[in-house]
Amino acid sequence: MDGGTAYVSGQVAFAGPDGPLLGKVGSDLDAEKAAGEAGKAVANGLYRLIETFGSLDVVQRVLKLTVFVNATAEFTEQPAVANGASRVLIDVLGDRGRHARSAVGVASLPLGVPVEVELVAKVAG
Amino acid sequence: MDGGTAYVSGQVAFAGPDGPLLGKVGSDLDAEKAAGEAGKAVANGLYRLIETFGSLDVVQRVLKLTVFVNATAEFTEQPAVANGASRVLIDVLGDRGRHARSAVGVASLPLGVPVEVELVAKVAG
Amino acid sequence: MDGGTAYVSGQVAFAGPDGPLLGKVGSDLDAEKAAGEAGKAVANGLYRLIETFGSLDVVQRVLKLTVFVNATAEFTEQPAVANGASRVLIDVLGDRGRHARSAVGVASLPLGVPVEVELVAKVAG
Repeated sequence: MDGGTAYVSGQVAFAGPDGPLLGKVGSDLDAEKAAGEAGKAVANGLYRLIETFGSLDVVQRVLKLTVFVNATAEFTEQPAVANGASRVLIDVLGDRGRHARSAVGVASLPLGVPVEVELVAKVAG
Repeated sequence: MDGGTAYVSGQVAFAGPDGPLLGKVGSDLDAEKAAGEAGKAVANGLYRLIETFGSLDVVQRVLKLTVFVNATAEFTEQPAVANGASRVLIDVLGDRGRHARSAVGVASLPLGVPVEVELVAKVAG
Repeated sequence: MDGGTAYVSGQVAFAGPDGPLLGKVGSDLDAEKAAGEAGKAVANGLYRLIETFGSLDVVQRVLKLTVFVNATAEFTEQPAVANGASRVLIDVLGDRGRHARSAVGVASLPLGVPVEVELVAKVAG
């Protein structure tokens, strides 16, 4: 938190009953499946904001979404993956969920998860 | 926008008449060519600011430039690529264009472009 | 600097007498060794703040730490590497050193160093 700016640590999708979904996008899973994981990861980011502030009412605007895709060297659909996260932000927060965004393919991610997302949000107070 | 802070989404170079320049830096194209693409990408970032604010007069300072280079595992000249973007910022904005910077090689980028850049800027108002 | 927010450029570990430690994490060096390099890199980030502000007294809070690990496609211990940087921030700054964090594996880094870190900090004034 910096005055009105909240930085949320990189988030991954919650583990399912069989553990987290792992794998490289472009070989082990496709963009559509990865978009679902991006959505779950950003939902965890919103959960962190609720933990910190008690609710999402304080969120005035999502300022920045960064989507790191654990991708092959040939993968080119990073925006399609990121859309899974963007949709959740808009669905939950409406116009307050609109954001600047970057999406890149990285070499590897913690645990071997396919997607990690980070958020910067403007908050009241 | 967060009060005086503007976040610009990741930008790539505009497509030429034959479509965008694609390829991996370190194999398909070299650092010098990629630096030119970084310059075009950051110019698009400035264009986004003009779209939002009407002109660059409101830009008090570029705070941060991040340069994602679609690079081979052996590529080490990320700073030379980023210089292409830094030069454009200084050329256009003078001292207001000075910035903190990070440059990293990523596994892959949208469409297969060689460079993506993102900007954070301090703006008046 | 944006009012109270300082952006520190991507930092790598200082070169030793034989030049900088180079290599890919997951093959050339392991997570523990890379964590040491992350710690040295973030110490350089603190040094930049001292250069700019005269001391670390002005640092009210580290807002964000991003750790880029020059990693193989199979590497999954990015958090262990990042811990090397987080520990230095807490050791030096105490509670003021607590931070949001992201850690990702990238394809390549400047010079071939194993780790690059960037910082955003809230500063007085």
